[in-house]
Amino acid sequence: MRVLITAGGTREPIDAVRFIGNRSSGRLSAALADAALAGGHSTTVIAAAVAVPINPAARRIDVETSAEMMKAVLTEFPAHDLLVMAAAVSDYRPRTPAAGKIERSGPITIEFEPTQDILAAVGRIKRPDQRTVGFSLESAAVPQRAAGKLIAKSLDLIVANPLATMSSASIQPILIYPDGRREPLPVMDKSQFANELMSRCIQLFA
Amino acid sequence: MRVLITAGGTREPIDAVRFIGNRSSGRLSAALADAALAGGHSTTVIAAAVAVPINPAARRIDVETSAEMMKAVLTEFPAHDLLVMAAAVSDYRPRTPAAGKIERSGPITIEFEPTQDILAAVGRIKRPDQRTVGFSLESAAVPQRAAGKLIAKSLDLIVANPLATMSSASIQPILIYPDGRREPLPVMDKSQFANELMSRCIQLFA
Repeated sequence: MRVLITAGGTREPIDAVRFIGNRSSGRLSAALADAALAGGHSTTVIAAAVAVPINPAARRIDVETSAEMMKAVLTEFPAHDLLVMAAAVSDYRPRTPAAGKIERSGPITIEFEPTQDILAAVGRIKRPDQRTVGFSLESAAVPQRAAGKLIAKSLDLIVANPLATMSSASIQPILIYPDGRREPLPVMDKSQFANELMSRCIQLFA
Repeated sequence: MRVLITAGGTREPIDAVRFIGNRSSGRLSAALADAALAGGHSTTVIAAAVAVPINPAARRIDVETSAEMMKAVLTEFPAHDLLVMAAAVSDYRPRTPAAGKIERSGPITIEFEPTQDILAAVGRIKRPDQRTVGFSLESAAVPQRAAGKLIAKSLDLIVANPLATMSSASIQPILIYPDGRREPLPVMDKSQFANELMSRCIQLFA
């Protein structure tokens, strides 16, 4: 299998030195790359800002912004069988980043615009022989929103996580499938979960 | 000498997962801590987000936001002889961070307020036996702004750097002193510069 994994958190520039980032460590994606490589799968990692090393046996493409991540994913996806979209992509970016450095003065207001939805774009070019897996970070206990995203983006599996998952070493996910089936998993560390998830991904091709 | 060094870039939360960060790597501060420890000085590092390891022989205090950094600096400064304020502290923070996660929808506007100026606050409690060193990231070639900060914040030395210094391995600084003296230094790597700067700091006590 040719596996494409996105990793880390995108950064959207506000000016020459500041950006909007998020708390994704890339730890789960790094574990997923390990699990895919251990399974003998050819693995590509598209990495935004990550705080952990990525297995050097993976082919690695570095990006910074959500727009760069989108371009890399749409370029790479056709040559892969499975996409696991584990990166934390900014939903918003400053509408007009400043060229220099904004100096401290009085209060300022910054306008943000939504970024493009990468998984929705992937859903539009997805072939019947390809599978896609998404993640949904949920503030609420009941993952209604995740189930909606699964359908809207033509995903084959979505992992609903509580907010606390981000930057944590462990995860307590619920897997949701297009037929409505929900598979709650116990709390486990991210490398255990990576192995569980890779085995579910292989079953998606059955 | 008891040396207090601030390191890395502060993060200001926008909501539960997003923050405003900056491109500071903490590399220069890590090199300064190494130089101070090598000189036999008792060294405390107040570290915001850093991308590099800090010498474990330093006493380390971890912080996230500019407000936490300010509190730690004002608490620690009285017990130190020298403060080198090498961290990149956010000048702005969202006025009202959201408790949960802002979901993607239409354009949004976020209001930012200036953060408190840590070096200005330090200047107000500084004793005659203490020395303070600041940094100024300059978009322009002529460091007028840096000279103004030096006076306004009662610094003993300010390092004016071009914007490109941040997240770079090298630095091409101009040192500016209260008597108006300017000492331009050649391009050097950050560990060389750390040694140069520590030797200038010791001279400040002469």
